[in-house]
Amino acid sequence: MTHYTDKISIETSKTSKIDTVDFDNLDFGRLFTDHMFVCDYEDGKWQTPKVMPYQAMTFEPSARVFHYGQAVFEGMKAYKDDEGKVFLFRPKANFDRINKSSERLAMPAFPENYFFEGLEALLKLDSDWIQPGVGNSLYLRPFIIATEPAISASPANNYRFMIICSPAKSYYNAPVRVLIAEEYSRSADGGVGFAKAAGNYAAQFYPTSLAQEKGFQQIIWTDASTHSFLEEAGTMNVFFRVGDKLITAPTSDRILDGVTRKSMLQLAEDLGITCEVRRVTVEEIKTAAKEGELKEIFGTGTAAVISVISAFEHKGELFEIPEIEDSYAKLFKKTLLEIQHNISEDKHNWRYEIK
Amino acid sequence: MTHYTDKISIETSKTSKIDTVDFDNLDFGRLFTDHMFVCDYEDGKWQTPKVMPYQAMTFEPSARVFHYGQAVFEGMKAYKDDEGKVFLFRPKANFDRINKSSERLAMPAFPENYFFEGLEALLKLDSDWIQPGVGNSLYLRPFIIATEPAISASPANNYRFMIICSPAKSYYNAPVRVLIAEEYSRSADGGVGFAKAAGNYAAQFYPTSLAQEKGFQQIIWTDASTHSFLEEAGTMNVFFRVGDKLITAPTSDRILDGVTRKSMLQLAEDLGITCEVRRVTVEEIKTAAKEGELKEIFGTGTAAVISVISAFEHKGELFEIPEIEDSYAKLFKKTLLEIQHNISEDKHNWRYEIK
Repeated sequence: MTHYTDKISIETSKTSKIDTVDFDNLDFGRLFTDHMFVCDYEDGKWQTPKVMPYQAMTFEPSARVFHYGQAVFEGMKAYKDDEGKVFLFRPKANFDRINKSSERLAMPAFPENYFFEGLEALLKLDSDWIQPGVGNSLYLRPFIIATEPAISASPANNYRFMIICSPAKSYYNAPVRVLIAEEYSRSADGGVGFAKAAGNYAAQFYPTSLAQEKGFQQIIWTDASTHSFLEEAGTMNVFFRVGDKLITAPTSDRILDGVTRKSMLQLAEDLGITCEVRRVTVEEIKTAAKEGELKEIFGTGTAAVISVISAFEHKGELFEIPEIEDSYAKLFKKTLLEIQHNISEDKHNWRYEIK
Repeated sequence: MTHYTDKISIETSKTSKIDTVDFDNLDFGRLFTDHMFVCDYEDGKWQTPKVMPYQAMTFEPSARVFHYGQAVFEGMKAYKDDEGKVFLFRPKANFDRINKSSERLAMPAFPENYFFEGLEALLKLDSDWIQPGVGNSLYLRPFIIATEPAISASPANNYRFMIICSPAKSYYNAPVRVLIAEEYSRSADGGVGFAKAAGNYAAQFYPTSLAQEKGFQQIIWTDASTHSFLEEAGTMNVFFRVGDKLITAPTSDRILDGVTRKSMLQLAEDLGITCEVRRVTVEEIKTAAKEGELKEIFGTGTAAVISVISAFEHKGELFEIPEIEDSYAKLFKKTLLEIQHNISEDKHNWRYEIK
């Protein structure tokens, strides 16, 4: 086992962009903080990691990521409470998952201490970029790309792990209308759907644009073989409320093991709400809708936390889901945000303070 | 319709690397010629294309290709005959396919005249890099990547189209032993398997490495739903010879419409060899092997032309395919190479001369 004991090399930025930032008008994922974390894999091991000023980088045109898509990522957020303390939310889950994603794409595992030391160094240097206030956050994007300059179709020998940080605003998510997939699919049994692999996302854009032309914002993906089981909503996991009971699909090699998803399952238990984790058919959801038993559908994910689905269409049949008073979506979102922002008790030790 | 009438801007390299190249010992895809072709998509259109010295390029860490895998490519070859004339092989098929791949990944179509003008400009400047001799070639890699620096999960607004060129040697392909996929899969119905999308390749590396640990070089992919139909071999299309008849799977949204594959179908017709294009089951190939009727299996693709498969394993059962005298693989490879190198008649107008 390789031990990683080198210190991180830190080069701080001489100037800061922060004074030019309008934190009330942030466009998601376009603006990045003053620093980034970089660690290269060469000669069979991860080299000394660096924190450096955020900057463009040089790549050979033959860098393998451009040709064969060896690229995985994570999405995380840092939060600041009213006293200025900074927290991550279940970062070990992201660490574990990026290595699962990497393994499936034949990429080397990243060392745990480098991952956490990188996050901590960045969040200390760029802590002014984290705005207090429930819903505000600093979105963190760890990612790994194959950099080896050679276009043979095999796993690369060189990689780059990076973390870049983008301030994100609390914003109102309008409910979305979704189309249930009947033809296109997101992933195959035995494929890479469970991984946060770059190629999974590009593959969704075209079917989603077709749905958008029909007036829907997103797609609920179904299984590729029969299109009869509901799996994910856009890039989020999806929950259905039938009566007072929640249902969500089990994770599999097609479905992402979402951190928000598994937090919802725990919160449901804490709140005494029954949540069945089982395969969900399109037919049962349509039947529930017709019988007035379908109360809510919502997607869960790090970026939007919870995204309410107000209507869905399947085989030309449109179902509207009327807004309800005692919404689970609202309850879960509030409960989760209060834990993330150090407002309520953290009985599952989900918060990770940056000291 | 946008008209593209601007001239290509050409900046030639002041020096050439060609004298440092050992053309007898080329490692595929590591060495590139003196020039490359670059065209950026900005403000909703492809900008003036450029030929420039081959060089590294600068990208923002947030460039969308690193995160969401919007990246497609093609593989083509240029050949030189004994008189020094330079030819491409069916380049229109590659042009059509890169735009089909792009469409599926929500990327803009590239203009046909830019594609051909770029190829021609590069091949004229770097023609010394194309070695004569059957089997030698200059491998051409057109590719398109999403460059927009913003990590929202949606199609990018900015792209870069490039062509880079790498000299390739005629080499003996040792027959390969393959494992038939029982668990992992390459693509889903309704997915992107038909496209030359970067992410399709990264997804194959891990299952292939598992096969390699068992002593097999490649995988024959089966359908994701039942693993009972044979679809592709590694990154190649696959043909089975049972008795004197060839069989290959039809193209679909899971199977690449290979240029070599479709040329083989035409050559089979020209040579009076029956080729059935239909779904092929694992069971029928195993039965044919047991009855001594399975004469050959081979993969087809631009890089290796034909790759002979000498053995396959399925559910722990190993089948060896003895080498035969009158091999279709050898016949097809020779026939195709002679057309590509301007040695034999080109009755289907497959050659495209660079004048």
